Amino acid sequence: MTMKIHLAIYLSLLVAVNAYEIWPHPKQMKMNDTFLSIDPKNFTIHSKTNGECQVLNRAIERYLDRMFIQDCSLVNEQFRGRYLSNKTENFKKMTNYSGQMTTLLILVHDKCETMPNTKMNEAYTVKIDKDHSVIESKSVWGALRGLETFSQMFRHVGKNQFSINTGQIDDEPRFAFRGVMLDSSRHFLPLHAIYETLDAMEMNKFNVFHWHIVDDQSFPFVSTTFPELSKKGSYRSNFIYTPEDVQKVLRYANDRGIRLIPEFDSPGHTESWGKGQPNLLTQCYDGKGKPIPNSYGPINPVLNSTYEFIQKLFHEIAERFPDQYMHLGGDEVDFGCWKSNPILQEFMKINQFGDDYAKLESYYITKLIDIVQNLNRSYIVWQEVFDNEVKIRPETVVHVWKNGALWQMEMKNVTKAGYQALLSSCWYLNYISYGNDWYKYYQCDPQNFNGTIQEQNLVTGGEACLWGEFIDASNLISRTWPRACAVAERLWSPKSFKDPKKAKTRFHGQRCRMQILGLKVEPIEGPDFCYCDDAI
Amino acid sequence: MTMKIHLAIYLSLLVAVNAYEIWPHPKQMKMNDTFLSIDPKNFTIHSKTNGECQVLNRAIERYLDRMFIQDCSLVNEQFRGRYLSNKTENFKKMTNYSGQMTTLLILVHDKCETMPNTKMNEAYTVKIDKDHSVIESKSVWGALRGLETFSQMFRHVGKNQFSINTGQIDDEPRFAFRGVMLDSSRHFLPLHAIYETLDAMEMNKFNVFHWHIVDDQSFPFVSTTFPELSKKGSYRSNFIYTPEDVQKVLRYANDRGIRLIPEFDSPGHTESWGKGQPNLLTQCYDGKGKPIPNSYGPINPVLNSTYEFIQKLFHEIAERFPDQYMHLGGDEVDFGCWKSNPILQEFMKINQFGDDYAKLESYYITKLIDIVQNLNRSYIVWQEVFDNEVKIRPETVVHVWKNGALWQMEMKNVTKAGYQALLSSCWYLNYISYGNDWYKYYQCDPQNFNGTIQEQNLVTGGEACLWGEFIDASNLISRTWPRACAVAERLWSPKSFKDPKKAKTRFHGQRCRMQILGLKVEPIEGPDFCYCDDAI
Repeated sequence: MTMKIHLAIYLSLLVAVNAYEIWPHPKQMKMNDTFLSIDPKNFTIHSKTNGECQVLNRAIERYLDRMFIQDCSLVNEQFRGRYLSNKTENFKKMTNYSGQMTTLLILVHDKCETMPNTKMNEAYTVKIDKDHSVIESKSVWGALRGLETFSQMFRHVGKNQFSINTGQIDDEPRFAFRGVMLDSSRHFLPLHAIYETLDAMEMNKFNVFHWHIVDDQSFPFVSTTFPELSKKGSYRSNFIYTPEDVQKVLRYANDRGIRLIPEFDSPGHTESWGKGQPNLLTQCYDGKGKPIPNSYGPINPVLNSTYEFIQKLFHEIAERFPDQYMHLGGDEVDFGCWKSNPILQEFMKINQFGDDYAKLESYYITKLIDIVQNLNRSYIVWQEVFDNEVKIRPETVVHVWKNGALWQMEMKNVTKAGYQALLSSCWYLNYISYGNDWYKYYQCDPQNFNGTIQEQNLVTGGEACLWGEFIDASNLISRTWPRACAVAERLWSPKSFKDPKKAKTRFHGQRCRMQILGLKVEPIEGPDFCYCDDAI
Repeated sequence: MTMKIHLAIYLSLLVAVNAYEIWPHPKQMKMNDTFLSIDPKNFTIHSKTNGECQVLNRAIERYLDRMFIQDCSLVNEQFRGRYLSNKTENFKKMTNYSGQMTTLLILVHDKCETMPNTKMNEAYTVKIDKDHSVIESKSVWGALRGLETFSQMFRHVGKNQFSINTGQIDDEPRFAFRGVMLDSSRHFLPLHAIYETLDAMEMNKFNVFHWHIVDDQSFPFVSTTFPELSKKGSYRSNFIYTPEDVQKVLRYANDRGIRLIPEFDSPGHTESWGKGQPNLLTQCYDGKGKPIPNSYGPINPVLNSTYEFIQKLFHEIAERFPDQYMHLGGDEVDFGCWKSNPILQEFMKINQFGDDYAKLESYYITKLIDIVQNLNRSYIVWQEVFDNEVKIRPETVVHVWKNGALWQMEMKNVTKAGYQALLSSCWYLNYISYGNDWYKYYQCDPQNFNGTIQEQNLVTGGEACLWGEFIDASNLISRTWPRACAVAERLWSPKSFKDPKKAKTRFHGQRCRMQILGLKVEPIEGPDFCYCDDAI
């Protein structure tokens, strides 16, 4: 009977509020037929923590605000009061009705951590029971994930009427590192676009925001040590991220259990750095040995001044971004300009590098790494740093991004060498194509390579990348979501969830759920509808 | 000197307000170095028309409202007052300064038409002169196009300071039919998304909105004759277009010199029609000759009741949509179900159609065409109707949509047979791909086929299609624009404008211009910026 009701609701609304339709799918669920009713006006969440826990308090407030959304007002204020349902159901006459749920207890056992981190524990249990409903976790991060799950378990039955099935969910992520990368250099992204991304990430249990904040095209990061970098390197004087902006993003991410890892990619991808920092980039020369005016290559690796600058800049970065890890980049270093420069040629000779400019790159990266290590930070590097055999520390994470069938081999090589591997090769979401391409994102498994168990265990996770060449705030959210949801489930849920056809309905539910909460997610499953399509 | 100033403005702002940067490019421009200043507070537009001309009056109001936008307030109200420029220039000290322009006269010679139509004259002249500036045209539609051009000629020089070069533009479109098609069946599109599309169309001098209003998936059009069609065929009770909604869209399009051509595609693509109109669709049968429950094919062409229904429905459509043309569809008729049905098999025998179900389709289309002709309407049909040799009237427009290298052959065949041809094959903008794909849209020329001059002259124009499988209001504008601008210029400007690399800067200018006027257009040229990127 209950199931019938729920099916009817599903068919009539096709909205996201369906039983068991949790995305990403939990590890274990044991749900019963019996259900409890919830009256938004008579429901509270209590918490029991080991000491003060502001992150949890704020999360409870946030979820209470959105758990009982019954209209499209978050999509469009003009739709406030057009309820998803105007019915009034008599719960008491329903089979399997077990009474009203008026409280949820959140129980966090460990001392409340204030910052998400590499070792964060995201496991949790949700028990829904007639007498006592509880989210239980060791860490506050588990409680946050549990709250998301709990909010997805609701069914909207009638006006101000919600229900939830009894049962138990035991959940934890498959991979520790589940990231989304945004690029704010190719096009400037206003803060609200980053906040919306973080909201969407929370709904999909992502836990790392990789901020590719600067690149060749622009340098929007305001450095207080080198203010000229953004003054001269940003697209416009107001297309910048001030220290306060960075703080705001950090807090926003932090509150959602999301680590913020900044990337200051070097020695390539630094054209915009050169505008505000003279003598940083390599002067390129023409065939006749003459300097080409205004032609610069990667960072000049042979000058002492370079490392003084890098030391000071990364010192500031470390102060600004508290995560244990930084992303150091290291990809796509173009050797052409380096080769043309006579001073660098001389340096190559003296150091007996022969013609191998990868050695010059290694020279730079090694020094960069030393600097970062002295700041007590660990680092992620793009795969070229590993491929070029730069000496890196054991806890380095190697970010595998090159595409084609070769990523499996790269994952094997990286993990065989004992490094942690992070996969993005199959998740360059900026590479759009026609149709429901989320299937292929869903089917890519980072452990799907010929590795030993030890090697497979070195796969720390993966990351959906949104390179910004063709993305700005006009299309960031609709392009990223719900396509990134496929990556989210791949990285959180057990390996056995691998058939996109079986996930299709749940995926649609997640899209509609995100829409109702105000995110302008696109339709990527073909013809269909969500409840608020007319309010977008 | 003037040019230098303008170049500097361009480089510093990269906004759309640059000299000569008109999109689509006019047929003829003779611009001088001398320029006039314009003070928004001391500028009026007068008109001299042959009798009353409300369409023009409303257009003048509309353009005056947006000509002098100096901030990002149309993108985001919070940015009101952050001016694009805070400078004050002393015009009088500038070389080539010719004085202030305080009035523009619009001169329309013919009696003011109230509705854009197949024969609408869109030619106009803009003369900017020290003593007398004028937009002159035979018809009101030319005046509207001239106003758009005039508004694009402005340069924003300083706070409340604008300038315009003197000179003359003589312009008219290359093709008479320049359309954009939206599909409101695969996903419901709220009215504002249609309005925004019409705004964008006006800015790019498109003149036909082809509304693919219903299809298999949903029937959002409210018919007063057959109210059950939308009641049972729409996705949701509020995902509909009422008679008032249709009227609003009509007026909105009309005011912008845009014809509205509705498409009620049949006999295929009608699954949603069957929900509210019993016995309309063909019952499908299984291999054993038994009816398959709830399995229906195209409209049943053998029943008299079908044609009674079609007659009444199209009578209502003709009353609702005043354009001379209707789009009758006729594409992708799936013969499988027709073949399975014993009643249709019998009918085929009686009519000696053999096994050729294209003849049955022709039978239906011929009757449909008779009905539409009795309503005094002309029609557009998808190419299959022509391919299947249905008898069609001489003024029929054949809509060529199939892709691959074959569209040239189809254009040849259609025009050789004496019919007008409308091209969409290379402009299915819903087929997305990575990168700046507008180049290929720009390079497709509808007259690029091996035809005589007479045949080439039968090319009435083209249409950018946005099929809705993966489009709703979340991504409609950013997906369509500025990509459709490439189609706009191909259809308006002389054939000689064919190199996208030469058009690149102007294209970017048009994107930024559309952004500043509040349209959430996407970046499709690679890394760059428009002035309001942070306000999106």
